This record gives sequence, structure tokens and C-alpha cells, in this order.
Amino acid sequence: MNVPTLGQLAGRILGEVRGDAALEIRGAAALRKAGPHEITFAGDEKHLRLLDDSRAGACLVQRRFRDDRVLNGARPALVFVDDPQDAFIAILREFRTVPGPRTLGVSPNAIISGSASIGPDCNIYPGVFVDDNVVVGARCDLYPGAYIGRDCKIGDDCILYPHAVLYADVRLGNRVIVHASAILGADGFGYRFRNGRFEKIPQLGWVEVEDDCEIGACATIDRGMIGATVVGEGTKLDNLVMIGHNCELGKHNAFASQVGLAGSVTTGDYVRCAGQVGVADHVHLGRGCTLGAKAGIHKDIPEGETHIGYPARPEQEQLRIVMATGKVPEMRKALRELEVRVEKLTRLVQQLTAPGVES
Amino acid sequence: MNVPTLGQLAGRILGEVRGDAALEIRGAAALRKAGPHEITFAGDEKHLRLLDDSRAGACLVQRRFRDDRVLNGARPALVFVDDPQDAFIAILREFRTVPGPRTLGVSPNAIISGSASIGPDCNIYPGVFVDDNVVVGARCDLYPGAYIGRDCKIGDDCILYPHAVLYADVRLGNRVIVHASAILGADGFGYRFRNGRFEKIPQLGWVEVEDDCEIGACATIDRGMIGATVVGEGTKLDNLVMIGHNCELGKHNAFASQVGLAGSVTTGDYVRCAGQVGVADHVHLGRGCTLGAKAGIHKDIPEGETHIGYPARPEQEQLRIVMATGKVPEMRKALRELEVRVEKLTRLVQQLTAPGVES
Amino acid sequence: MNVPTLGQLAGRILGEVRGDAALEIRGAAALRKAGPHEITFAGDEKHLRLLDDSRAGACLVQRRFRDDRVLNGARPALVFVDDPQDAFIAILREFRTVPGPRTLGVSPNAIISGSASIGPDCNIYPGVFVDDNVVVGARCDLYPGAYIGRDCKIGDDCILYPHAVLYADVRLGNRVIVHASAILGADGFGYRFRNGRFEKIPQLGWVEVEDDCEIGACATIDRGMIGATVVGEGTKLDNLVMIGHNCELGKHNAFASQVGLAGSVTTGDYVRCAGQVGVADHVHLGRGCTLGAKAGIHKDIPEGETHIGYPARPEQEQLRIVMATGKVPEMRKALRELEVRVEKLTRLVQQLTAPGVES
Repeated sequence: MNVPTLGQLAGRILGEVRGDAALEIRGAAALRKAGPHEITFAGDEKHLRLLDDSRAGACLVQRRFRDDRVLNGARPALVFVDDPQDAFIAILREFRTVPGPRTLGVSPNAIISGSASIGPDCNIYPGVFVDDNVVVGARCDLYPGAYIGRDCKIGDDCILYPHAVLYADVRLGNRVIVHASAILGADGFGYRFRNGRFEKIPQLGWVEVEDDCEIGACATIDRGMIGATVVGEGTKLDNLVMIGHNCELGKHNAFASQVGLAGSVTTGDYVRCAGQVGVADHVHLGRGCTLGAKAGIHKDIPEGETHIGYPARPEQEQLRIVMATGKVPEMRKALRELEVRVEKLTRLVQQLTAPGVES
Repeated sequence: MNVPTLGQLAGRILGEVRGDAALEIRGAAALRKAGPHEITFAGDEKHLRLLDDSRAGACLVQRRFRDDRVLNGARPALVFVDDPQDAFIAILREFRTVPGPRTLGVSPNAIISGSASIGPDCNIYPGVFVDDNVVVGARCDLYPGAYIGRDCKIGDDCILYPHAVLYADVRLGNRVIVHASAILGADGFGYRFRNGRFEKIPQLGWVEVEDDCEIGACATIDRGMIGATVVGEGTKLDNLVMIGHNCELGKHNAFASQVGLAGSVTTGDYVRCAGQVGVADHVHLGRGCTLGAKAGIHKDIPEGETHIGYPARPEQEQLRIVMATGKVPEMRKALRELEVRVEKLTRLVQQLTAPGVES
Repeated sequence: MNVPTLGQLAGRILGEVRGDAALEIRGAAALRKAGPHEITFAGDEKHLRLLDDSRAGACLVQRRFRDDRVLNGARPALVFVDDPQDAFIAILREFRTVPGPRTLGVSPNAIISGSASIGPDCNIYPGVFVDDNVVVGARCDLYPGAYIGRDCKIGDDCILYPHAVLYADVRLGNRVIVHASAILGADGFGYRFRNGRFEKIPQLGWVEVEDDCEIGACATIDRGMIGATVVGEGTKLDNLVMIGHNCELGKHNAFASQVGLAGSVTTGDYVRCAGQVGVADHVHLGRGCTLGAKAGIHKDIPEGETHIGYPARPEQEQLRIVMATGKVPEMRKALRELEVRVEKLTRLVQQLTAPGVES
């Protein structure tokens, strides 16, 4: 790419320049990092206030701030657009020459069962293993070490990054992304305790991941004991998340890193879990509820509520308790002092009421 | 399989039918999921009470409930058996035509050192790597990407799922299952801090996993610094569990997902940890103790006790504290009110005792 | 190795023997484990006190304890040295005949792009995948299943254990160790919520891991959304650690297992996190601060401070609160009793002050 001027870049994203349109823009970077020949973006008003301290040559700003006083005397050149983040990503793509899509086809170094069916325009890298009766849709990328067990079904436009593992009988919808070393369909943690030993309960179910899900690196989704473990459409799981056997997640959930769900947890749509949340078995998380970081959940969570802490409570209640708990050492002191005062008072009053002493 | 009648199925599991023995049974499913031509099972009394709401065609029930009023008017046909779960699993196996065991032998696409010894009737898939002086017992399955480092010893009837990794010198007993991307024998997290830098302490020990253990997907068991990290017979570790260097776990422990043990933790037999428990280094968990979800353990736990919370305390004590802590905001208010009352009272009493005012 | 005498071993490590120099030493083990023909070491005074109970034949002890009373009548033979741990490791290496370095070269069963550049004296195992434009320095070991994406740069003397994954554009300094199934450069967890769905924000940044870092098994370090996720020189991450996108870690940090950092966390040098710590996005951890096990961090931590608990507070404050919180049930009881007493007292005083009743 030739080095564009700010004016040229702005033209491509339908932006309106205020400042030096002839400035050469050589890259794009975050607000704190951008230099004099780089462009950045301000996502919100807070960012706009940081503009004066930025070394950025130019900044993408939402149109509605055009006449805002916060921009008075802003140092970088400004480009007003409808959506600064979108515009920024478009520009970023120009500077980061991401290599185009590959047309690798099916590597002769992949091992693919004769009974598997591979859709058109897939890239199947060396070291991929595809077992019997697998069906892979169109335009899928299977990176080195991806393992697809017997009878798996994968939709169109899926990506399995290196060493992603689908045990037998895992089903992916369309446009599902499985990151490296994510493990789908391993046996659930199910045993019967008999004669002093744990006896394995066969895990005869499967896993279904619906359209548009993304599964993070080293996340694990166990197969159902009976029936399916389900991840609903559009749900996103971050790295190192654990989904136990027979969980059924609704649509458009988002679970941050290291969240763990025990067996048979169910969730409504639009549930959000911050990092390291843990949920006990058979709990239901209601539609649209939110769980704060490290929350520990033992009971069903009603629709739309936000719960935090361990044991989890509704957010406002928990905040009040945490705040008050910080005062417990003082309270303890105050309580002891009060006891002493009451003791003293009691003696005084006893003297006052004691028959025939003074009065 | 031809579609069996309920009577035919019941015959195979020595069950006694109450209801329509001619009903065609086309599948098996969980209580909430089963349809009119499916069979389910009721594990306990709670399940029996749900029977009326179930759409199931038939249900396996324990014999001792045969005359129980809870079954009065139960909608599904009933099959009385000694152990409903066992019977259900037997039936499930009939419906889920799990492919039989393979006789793959040793794939020519596996890389196996000339000095390794492989027992009879193993299945070694393409992409397996077996290093020098490894000994593998009889009837083991090593899936694609399984990596066995130098001098490892693996017993009979073990399964290593895809990308399971044994660093050098790891020893597995018989019937050990290692799930996908579980990592055994990586270096312990041991450094000396010298001259402003962390200096690696060589991790010269090894890992021993005894008979009948199961290690979850993406679990990690570090090698000892000196000597062995040990996982005792029959112990089960769920996905994403971390066992630090030189830990020594007793027999028949069960640790749920995302549990973490720092270095040199020891445990007795029959220890159970719920999900996301963390245990500090050198702690001993006594035989038969239980740790609740997310418990944080800094001290030895006595035999047989149940501890919960963070910092962990004995269960009853912790429950009392958690309950009371929820009242701290009210307590704080009550304490302040009481202070005001005592202040007022003090003034009143002072007036009463003040010399020569009224009395 | 011929079986050495204690005197011979001591000579090699410049130690001074007190006891039977002719004792044959056949191995080295930890204090609790060593037998009559094994040597152990005592790291500190606490260990010295355990010497009498040890079955060890000999023990390495620091010279400054030579005249200490704690050694009076110690059973094992003693060897006085400057640094018992160093001496022990040296001896351990003699007994554990660790196989020498390999000169495997580049395996014909590795897949290496024609545009990749591999430095001298590397060991590249079968099943390694190296993509276009990758640069690998000298003397690197890439174990089976290591995956190096496009445009990655790896310095000298690095080790990538089995199934370590570098997505495109990851840069490693010199002497970096990446353990098995650690995943560097997967997409950050970044979405925009629009029209009822999560829309993926392209993650166009990269990952930089500086010299002398060690990354644990199944740890994950996400690529930046814009710009780099950085792990500073000499920083050590244990197994199953999660580093979110655009985090920037300082030098010589040490994070124990299962620690999770959300996006854009920054840290100074010498930061230490114990196991299972969680840090919210955009938080700064000041130079030299320490976070206790399971701490949950939502605010910046000042330089040098130690914070513990959830929500995290300065250590002394938190300990006071935890201690006091344990007393809340008693406090509640005491408060209720006090209320009763004050109520009674109030009535008494009211009687005393009531006009024209008795006085």
C-alpha cells in the first residue's frame, strides 16, 4: 500500500476531516500508543478527553461530537464518522496486510477416512485426522492437528484451529469457530461410588454446538451422559471455560475465561458470565441474567438479574454487605464499648432504684 | 435393531412391567426429555413425583416402590427393576449403536522409536509419537497426536485420547484413561529468585498415575522436582484440573473441574473436591474429607471433615458466618441506633444522679 | 555411574563431611523420603529440626549451621556446603542420568514452509508444522505437534513442547520455553452487541513474549485486538493461566496456576500472583505488588502492596476483616442481648423520671 494522506483515508470511510488532510498516515494504533503519523479512534467521551495528551496524528470521532466543547483545541487532526470503531477496523485492515484466504484444498498429509464426506472449498491442513462417517460442510478450515471423531457433523464455514478435538458424535452448526486445543465431547465426570471405588458411568450422549458459536482455546465441553450437551446459537465461550455434561446453554450467551459449569446447568438466552464464575449442577440461569467475576452460584438465578460474589447475591444487596463487612472490625470495637457503657449505666440505675440507700 | 416392545426390553433386564407391555420403545432419554415411545428412569423419589408431568412412554423404577402411593395414577408404563440406572444404561447401549472396538494395530503413520516396546492388541493411530525406551502394555488405545516421551511406562488397557501428552518418565498403571490435551509431566513451577531474576530449578522428578485413574481434558499434572508426583489408584480428575509438582494424592480421590493444587500437597484416600477449589502448597487433606466448590485451603484439613468457603472453615461454622454476614448491614444500623439510645439514656441518668438539681 | 562414597560426592561439590565419609550413596531424595543410602538436603532451620526423624544416610547443610545446637546428635552424616539446594541439584543430576541433548536436526516428517527460515542446530520433530515466512533462531527444540503460524518469529534457544501453538504473528525472544498445549495468539474475546447478536471484532494485533519467559502447559495468551499483547522479559506463567488481549506484563512477573487476566491489564515489574487470582480489564498492577491466592482485583494495585481476598483489600486490613467476620454470629447475639438490656434500662429510667409516680 502506498502511504495515504489523511484526506485519502477519510474519503474511503466517508469521513469528514478537520485539520491537516495532507498528513501522511503510516499506521493505526490505540489512543495511548499512536504516534504523529498514525491514526487512532475515540470510542466515547472519556477517550475524547485524553486526546490532548495523545501523540496521535489523527483521530476518528463520532459525528455527534462535531460541535462539542471537549474537542476545542484538540491536538490531533479529527475525522468525523458515523462509527469510529468500525471505521478504525476498516483502516486497520488496510495497514495490517492480512494474508488472503488460502486455497490449500485437502492436504495429502491429512488422514481422512474413506467414509467421510468433505464439502467444497475446504482447507484441510497436514496432520488433520477425520474419522469414519464424518460430514464436513463447505469452506471449512481444519488446521494441523484438528481431530474429528466418528460420526461428527460440521456445518459450512467452520474453523477448527490447531489441535481442536471433536470426540465422536459432536455436531457443529455453520460458522462455528473452535480455537486451538478446545476439547468437545470428552466424557462427562460421572461415576457411581460402589464397593469403595468410583465406577465409570458410560457417557453415551453427544455435543451440539449451534450456528455462529465461538469456543475459546483450551475450553472443554463434555458430552452428555444421555442426550446432548447443547451450546445455543451465537453463544461465545472464552478460553479455558468448562461446560459439564448435559448442560444446555441458550442463545447468545457470553462466558468469559475460566468459567465453569457443573453438569446439567441450563441457561436462557443472553446470559453473561464474567471470568472465573462457577455454577453448581442442575442450576438454571434465567434469560438475560449477568453473573459478576468469580461469582459462585448454587441456586437458580431469575431472569434479568445481576448476581455477584460468593455465595452469590443480587448485586445491590451484595455490595451493601461487602461494604458493611469492611466495617465489622470497627463494629466489634463499638459493640464492646457499648457493652461497657451499658454495664456502667446499669449499675448506676441499680443504685438509683435500690431501695433505701439514698433516696 | 428392530423396534422392541416394552415387554421385550423388560425381559432383557429382568424387569417386571406394569402397563402396556406391547408399547413400541424407539429410544431412551432423560425424564424431562423422553417422548411417548421412549423409556426413561427414575433414580429416586423426587423423580417419581415428576412422573405425571413426563411425556415418557415408560419408566424404570426401583422394585421397592412397587406399592408406593407416589406411583398411584402414574401416567407412563412402569418397569420395576433392582437398579434403574444400571438397567437404563443397558438399554441405552442397545439404542445407541456404539461402534465396536477397533483392530487398527499400529498405524504406519505413527512415529515409534525402535527402542520402544508395544504390547499386543494396541491401537496406535496416525500421528502418535512414541519416544525411546517407552514401554506400552497390552490393549492400549493411543489416539492421534498422543505423545509419549522417553522412558515412559504405560500399563495394560490404557486409553490416551488425542493430543494427550506424557513428558519423559511418566508412569501409568493399568486401565488409566487420559483425555485429550491432558498434560502429564511438564516442569513444576519452581524458581529461585536471584539477582533480580527468576532462575529455573531443574525439575528432575517424574509422575506416577496408578491403576484405574481417569484424567480430564486439558488437566495438567506437573512432574516432581525431586521424586514423584503421585496420583493414587482409582482417583478421578476432571477437566482443567491442576496438580502441582510433588503432590501425592491418595486413592479414590475425585476432583471436579478447575481444581488447583499447589506444590507438595498430600491427600488421604477418598478426598473429594468440588469445582474450582484451590489448595496452598504443602497442605494435607485428610482421608475422606470434602471441600466445597471454590473453597480456598491454606491449612491441613482433618480426616472426614467438610470445609467450604474462602478462607475455608468447617461447613456448619461457615454457613452460620455467611448467614450472619448477610445481616451485617442491619446490624450496623441497629448498633448505631442503640448507641444513640444509650447516649440519651446516659444523659438522663446523669441528670438523675447530678448532685442538687432536683432530688 | 559407579556407586560413590559420601566422601567422593562431597569432594565434587566442595563440601565438608561430618560423619561416615565411606558411606555408599546410591541416590538423592527429599528429606521425608530419603533412605539410609540416600542423600538429602536441609533448606532451612525448620528442615534441620526434622533431621532426627529422617532415615536419610546423609544431608547437605549450610556451612553457617556448622556449630548450631540444632545439629547436636543429628543422625545422618552431614555435608556442609555454601548452598545446599544448588549442591543437591548437582548431585541429583549425577544420579538421574538425564539423556544428553539430541541432534535430531529437521525431521523429514515435519511440515515446513519453503519460505520459513530455520536457524542452525535446531531439533524439529515429526509432526511439527511451520507456516510461511516464519523465522526460527538457532538451537531451538520444536516437539511433535508444535504449530507455528505465518510470520511468527522465534529467537534462539527456545523450546516448544508438544502441541504448543503459536497463531500467526507471535514473536518469542530468546530462551523462551512454551509448554505443551499452551496457546499463544488466539483471538481475544472481543464482540460488539448489535441487533441481538454478538458480532466479532477482528483481532488484528499480535503477541510478544520477551527473553527468558516460561509459559505453562495449557496456558493461553490472546493476541491484541490492535497492537500487541506483551509478556515482559523473564516472566513466568504457570499452567492454565489466561492472559487476555492487549495485556502488557512487565518483566519478571510470576503468576501461579489458573490465574486469569481480562483484557488490557498492565503490570509493573516483579508482580506476583498466587493461584486462581482474577484481574478485571484495564486494571494496573503496580511494580512489585503481590496478590494472594484467589484474590479478585477490580482496582489498580499500588506499587509494592500485598492484596488478598475477594474483593481484594490490603493484606492486614483483609485479615482483620476476615477475623472479625468470623465473630459476626456472636456479635449478632451480643447485639440482641444488649438491645434487650437497653430496653429494660430505658423502662427503669422512664419510671425514675416519670413525673409524680413515686418520688
